[in-house]
This record gives sequence, structure tokens and C-alpha cells, in this order.
Amino acid sequence: MSAQASAPAQPEHQPPPCDELKAEESNKPDEPQEQPDTAAAATPAAAAEEEAAQVEITYKSLVLSAHGGYDKVKLQVKKGSPAPKAGEVLVRVKACGLNFADLMARQGVYDRLPSLPVSLGMECAGIVEELGEGVTDRQVGDKVMVLNRFGLWQELVTIQTNHTFLMPGGMSFEEGAAFLVNYITAYMILFHFGNLRPNQSVLIHMAAGGVGTAAVQLCKTVDNITIFGTASASKHENLKENGVSHPIDYRGNDYVEEVRKVSPKGVDIVMDPLGGTDTCKAFNLLKPMGKLVIYGAANLLTGQKKNLMALAKSWWNQFSVTAMQLIGANKAVCGFHLGHLDEELELITSVVTTLLDLYKQGKIKPKIDTMFSFEQVGDAMRQMQEKKNVGKVVLIPDMPKEENATEEEKKDPKGEGKKEETKKDAKGEAKKDAKGEAKKDAKGDAKKDAKEEAKKDAKKDAKEDAKKDTKNEEN
Amino acid sequence: MSAQASAPAQPEHQPPPCDELKAEESNKPDEPQEQPDTAAAATPAAAAEEEAAQVEITYKSLVLSAHGGYDKVKLQVKKGSPAPKAGEVLVRVKACGLNFADLMARQGVYDRLPSLPVSLGMECAGIVEELGEGVTDRQVGDKVMVLNRFGLWQELVTIQTNHTFLMPGGMSFEEGAAFLVNYITAYMILFHFGNLRPNQSVLIHMAAGGVGTAAVQLCKTVDNITIFGTASASKHENLKENGVSHPIDYRGNDYVEEVRKVSPKGVDIVMDPLGGTDTCKAFNLLKPMGKLVIYGAANLLTGQKKNLMALAKSWWNQFSVTAMQLIGANKAVCGFHLGHLDEELELITSVVTTLLDLYKQGKIKPKIDTMFSFEQVGDAMRQMQEKKNVGKVVLIPDMPKEENATEEEKKDPKGEGKKEETKKDAKGEAKKDAKGEAKKDAKGDAKKDAKEEAKKDAKKDAKEDAKKDTKNEEN
Repeated sequence: MSAQASAPAQPEHQPPPCDELKAEESNKPDEPQEQPDTAAAATPAAAAEEEAAQVEITYKSLVLSAHGGYDKVKLQVKKGSPAPKAGEVLVRVKACGLNFADLMARQGVYDRLPSLPVSLGMECAGIVEELGEGVTDRQVGDKVMVLNRFGLWQELVTIQTNHTFLMPGGMSFEEGAAFLVNYITAYMILFHFGNLRPNQSVLIHMAAGGVGTAAVQLCKTVDNITIFGTASASKHENLKENGVSHPIDYRGNDYVEEVRKVSPKGVDIVMDPLGGTDTCKAFNLLKPMGKLVIYGAANLLTGQKKNLMALAKSWWNQFSVTAMQLIGANKAVCGFHLGHLDEELELITSVVTTLLDLYKQGKIKPKIDTMFSFEQVGDAMRQMQEKKNVGKVVLIPDMPKEENATEEEKKDPKGEGKKEETKKDAKGEAKKDAKGEAKKDAKGDAKKDAKEEAKKDAKKDAKEDAKKDTKNEEN
Repeated sequence: MSAQASAPAQPEHQPPPCDELKAEESNKPDEPQEQPDTAAAATPAAAAEEEAAQVEITYKSLVLSAHGGYDKVKLQVKKGSPAPKAGEVLVRVKACGLNFADLMARQGVYDRLPSLPVSLGMECAGIVEELGEGVTDRQVGDKVMVLNRFGLWQELVTIQTNHTFLMPGGMSFEEGAAFLVNYITAYMILFHFGNLRPNQSVLIHMAAGGVGTAAVQLCKTVDNITIFGTASASKHENLKENGVSHPIDYRGNDYVEEVRKVSPKGVDIVMDPLGGTDTCKAFNLLKPMGKLVIYGAANLLTGQKKNLMALAKSWWNQFSVTAMQLIGANKAVCGFHLGHLDEELELITSVVTTLLDLYKQGKIKPKIDTMFSFEQVGDAMRQMQEKKNVGKVVLIPDMPKEENATEEEKKDPKGEGKKEETKKDAKGEAKKDAKGEAKKDAKGDAKKDAKEEAKKDAKKDAKEDAKKDTKNEEN
């Protein structure tokens, strides 16, 4: 079963053909890596020179070789000369965005990938290094953002030009890597499906995440929107700074009650990335003429690996609605998935144009949570999956040593706070998952699977944490 | 079972209390009726005078006394002095609109009515004759359109002022009676749920009906909309005149194929008043980011009376959609029912304001199909239920003798064409209903019911037709 089981097969843009060299994965950020000289490759002449001097160039790529935990995405050093075909450009990637779909892909619950092994990554930002035949709308040296179904977590990518978008002046590569997926998603949900208008109200789940942050900023471009945002209490200051009128701690409180205290009739739009029973709650929270936009199933991600219990539960609790329920309540239910819009490039381009205008006017600005090096991809995924992030998690192929720390780590150099929180959360959640869920819902095999997986996850997480802590303390 | 089984109970606006006098129903338009002198009642002073002179005034009312066929809505002459309460006005009704909900109410498949007997009618237009206490925003003599859940098919109605809307100069009472329900419905479907934007495409079922006609005109207010409209072939000239780009005869052709010939990827919006399997077809016909708006179940209306077979079939084929289907396809499904929005008067008022601006700019204009006198309410309902209308069917309490003919009747004074068509249709459909449906789907009691109902309907229809024909020929 996959999260989007009904998706039709579609032609795929293949990553550049090349020989693959499997490198040992490393979590040590200071371990030396082969890194091509990017400065020398900034012009075609220089690139040609370099190519002559060094026939076999190499580049880093983050490859998913098997479904499973954080360790299944491995750093590889690829060998070869990716050359753009007609209509394509070669882009040297400077920063990549991490998205929920990447996490689901790793677990094997995402149907928009070709068969493994495959380089992950739906978005990145970088510099055009070479033009394929017939390309006239891009130039070598252009800074571009790139959107694709997969294959963008690499130092070098070849890509059709209509998948690239020129970055405006003043936008950093990190911002570029944090822009497309989150803002396109939030924009299309709020404006194409949600039809957001002045004086309305919106409930944004995971309001501190990448899409959540983008959505809050976009709501602020419309007059007098009441914004409800759920996130753990520690993020509420950030939510308020970003513009959330009513931050709600979904852990300690019933968010439905909290919303009704302010808006007894409910809200006009609910953005639902959670799935399962939260989708039913969302539907009931809509005002007449309200719109529920479901755009994910984050509730599926309850551990490192595909959780059969969570899948079974999600399947069992899957939201379903009839014509009569919709008519009787004057409500709309919409499903959104950017990964299934990859053939709608004209539509996407028009949305990006609008978004870039808003960016230039200073109305929207990506918020970067943490930058991780390619080597730290496991930590990056954990940061997002455990919902520790406030804003976007970004991967950098070529991280300079001094930048190799998160904002949190800078404040708390030994990582004591994070360590404690992570351990507590991981153990608590795993135990809860195994006991609570298994007791309540499981039958036979599913029960057994859940317990075993949870036990294994908990043990492994604890071991990995302990190892990492030792390493961190050594550094 | 009702069409909107899930609707919550809501407080009801009760029609004015009064004694009821049951009058014989009459289909003879020229039969004399007690009619109050409306000119004399045009000012409060005159009304008071009249009241003094004639204590007991009477007024006509169309009352549903039992669920069933066309004959179940009976003309009554009510006795009493309806007086507006605080916040209300008394309106002398000049024209009333007929809607699908009225037909469903008659059959007993509409849950928005209080218990029987009840005066039907969701919309009318007339003149304010008296103001209740505290009313400052309306004046005696104001021409108003009125919207209510029921009770407006009467010569006199008392109603809260926020259910009345001032008619613009130049609008006739017939237009006023054809404006609110159809245009509000079409507008909210196309713009609030559908979010119609330039260069999009729309499929409008029953495009020659009241909502259909309104929807086509509203589509024309947006640049470059491709409008597909279904209707029987005889109405296609009208559809083209109104602005339908591609009229489709749903009887002779597979409308899905016809749409795909022009728009291989499908359409952006489908307006679906049909229900059942047509709703599934509509969902499949949507482009990515497309919106299906279901706003009725006209497929339920297959005969004069509640058709158990049609209900069972509709229940069995009821459209239902899951979160994953929506996400995988990037589609939206919305349900609309104006009858369930009666507490959202602020929203409705803002929509009416927009619509009146469009009317004043000449961009929209109600199309009247036929005007029937109150005495002809059965014929009026038949005209709509058998989908003979092009535009709105209107009921007139006080029809001057010369206007007492439909456009069709004027062209075909003896009604030969209509008679033939009606007879053929009625018999054909009844037979088909009874035999085809019963054979295919029925079990036990349902089968028996369907056959008996169809037989009775066919016999009764034939008798009624024969009687009417004789009368028509006498006139």
C-alpha cells in the first residue's frame, strides 16, 4: 500500500546516467570529501578547461537504496560527466530542500518514485553551469531554483529548463531551496482550492513547519485573516512572530475546543497534512461554505520505518465523505499533492511568478530552521520527522565547516537540551505507540509487528542517540 | 430517508398565523377568485381604511397538504389579517419562483420543511405593504425580492427584512421571482467553491434550466471560459444564444466523450445537479485542481411521486470519495445547498449585492420560461419536472387573463405539440421506469411499489391530460 495508491503511472524524468560509486556514509561533518572546485567552473570556458584537465569528474549524491530508517539514504560519490540534453541545463546545486514526501519515500509509502536505488530530492537551488542544445531562456551563471519529482539531492543535476525558475536578486541559495515546494503548496491550497478572501479564518496544522510557515505568511497577504496554528508550545513565540493569531498546543489541548472558543461556528479553511482522525475533526470544524484541504498523511510517520500499525490504523480511519454529507453541510473537501502535478508546468509556473512577486515585495520570506551537510542527511530527516523544526530543513552539498551547526546547537553547544528532548520523545512515543496503539487497535499479526518494530526502533534510536552524543561530545 | 438526511434541525420562520379555508383547486384560469384590491392597499392609511371597512381579508396560498403527485399542492384561500411583527414587513406577492427543492418537497424527499400542511415557496417578488415595529430600512411601496426556506407561494407574506432585497429599477416582478435562488446558487458554486478564473472550462448540466441559465451568464463575466452545457437537442439554439460554447445532447450522446473531444484533459469545474452515477462521471471528468460541485439529486425525480426505486438506486450509487482518492488526483468535491444556508444571511446579502451590480451592468438577466397562475401550479411543476423549461418557471398569484399562456401555447394554441410530447414522455418514462428499472434492480416490495406507482401515475397522467386537453379546446 502506498499513500497515494490511486496515482496513475506517469513518465519520469530520469537523473543523469552515470556510473555509481558507493561511498561509506558518514555522519562526521568534518570528514574530508572530494569536492570539485565550484569557483573554477563558473564559466563555460573554465568548465571546458577543467574537463580537459580532469576527465572524470565526481559529484555527491544522496541515494535511497532500500526502504527503511534514516540510515537508508546514503551519500554516494558518483563518477561521470552529466551532460544536459536538448532543452536541459546542468545545475551545480548549492542547497536542497527536505520535504515530507522525502521521508515517506524513504519509508516506502510514496508512489511517485521509480524503482530503487534512486537519488531523492524534489527541490534545490544552484547555478546553471551548462546549457543543452536549443536552450535560450537560461544562461550560464543564472541562479535558479529547481523543482522535480526526485533526483535533486545531488551536487550536479541535469534538468529541463521549464523545471527551473530564476532566483530574484537578494535571495540566498538556502532560501531558494526552501521556496518552491512549500510556497507553491501553501499558495495552491489557500488560493486555488481554499479561495481565501478577506475576513476569513484558517486552521493551519504544523504551523511551524515549512508549508505551515509559508501558509501563515500567505494568509497575511489577505486582509484580516484569523490564523489558528498548531505546534508544540515551545514554538509558539515563533508562530506569533510569523503572524499566527492563535497558536494552539495540540499536545496539551483539544485543538477543536480551542478553535471553537474563538470561532464558535468554526473556520473557513482547514489545511490538513495529518490525515486519519484529524481529517474528520477538520471536516467538522468547517463553517458552512468551508473548505478542507488534505495534503498529506503525516500521522503515518510514527517511527523511523514504515509502521504497519500506523498504516493499518490510517487505512481503517481513512476519511471518506458522501455527496449527501457535503450537500447537507455546504462543505468542500479537496486533496492536494504537488508530486502529482508534475505535468502541470504551465500552472506551476504561473503560481511561481505570483510567489516571486510577493517575495520581491517583501511579503513572503522562507524561514530556514537548520542547514545540514549531505553527510548529515540522517540528522536532517530526524529533525523534520520528529517535528523539531521551525521553518525549513535544508541540505547543503558543500557545507563550509563554520556553518555546520544548527541554530539550536549554537545556543546549546553540547546539545544537552536536544538530546534530552529527543531521547524522551523517542522513548515515550515508541512506548506509547507500541502499548497504546497495540492495545487499542491491533489484531493478531499486526499487533506483533507493531510491538517488534517499536521495540527495535526504540533500541536502535537509543543506541544511535548514545553514539551520536558521544561523537558530539568528542567534537 | 431524505435527500439531506444529515441536516441539523434549525429554527424555522413560520408563515403568518391565520385561519385556513380550504378552497377547491381549480385549473381553470378564468374562474373568478376573491381578490383583494391591491391598489387600495398601497399605503398604510389606505390599508387601515380597508381593514376597517373589510375586517376579514383573504389571500391565496399554495399549500402542500400531503406528499405525492402534482395534485398535492392545493390552492387555498386563507382568511385573516397577516400583520408584520417587529423587524418584519408585509409583502404583497406579484410573482413566485419555482425550484427543484419545491418538487422534492412535494414528493417528501426534502428535509427543510416543517410538518404538513405548509405553504411552499422559497422565493418571490412583490411590494412592501406594511412595516413591522422598528423597521427603518424598508418603506411601504418598495419593490422587493424575498428569500425564505418556505411559505412564499402566497399573495401576502410577512417576512423579516433581512430576507428581502430591494429590486433595482427596470427589473420586472417575474425577473425578481427568477433571480435569487438561481443566481445565488450559480454564483456561489462558480465563485465561492469553483473559484472560476479566466481561461478555464466548466461543464453545466441542465444548462437550459434556471440555475443553468444563470451559471452560463455568470461564466460569461469571466474572460475566455469554455462552457459545456447539457440539454436536450431542442434547446441547443437557446443554449448558444445564452453563451454555451459546446451544447451537448445528453440523450443521444455520451457527454463525457463529447467533452473529451474538445478538452481531452477534462474540465476545471463540473456543476452537478443530477447525483447518482453522473457524479462519478463528473469526478472523473475533472482536470487536476478541478472542482466538482454537487448541488442536487435531480435523478431522484423520475416520476410524479416519491419513487422508491429511484431512491434505492440513488442510495446504492451514492457518490463517496476518500482522502487518498482526492490527494492522488488533486481534486475537490463540494456540496452546495442554498436551503441549508438560511442562517448565513450576511454571506447571502453580500452575494446578492454583487449579483445586483452585475444585473445593473446588463451582464446577467433572468430568462423566464413560462408564467403560470397559482391555479396552474400543477402544470408549472410538471413543466419543470419534465425538464421542458428553458429558463425559469414562474407562478403568478394574480394572472391577468391575456398573459395566461405560455410562450409555447401562444405558438401552438391548441397545445397539440406539447400534448403529444407530454403524453409520449409520460407514458414512455413511466413504462420504462416500471419495467426497466423494476426488472434490473428491484426486489420484493420495492418492485411492487414501483410498478403500482408507475401504473397509477401513467393512468392518472393520461386522464388528467385528456381532461386538460378538453378544457383547453373549450377555451
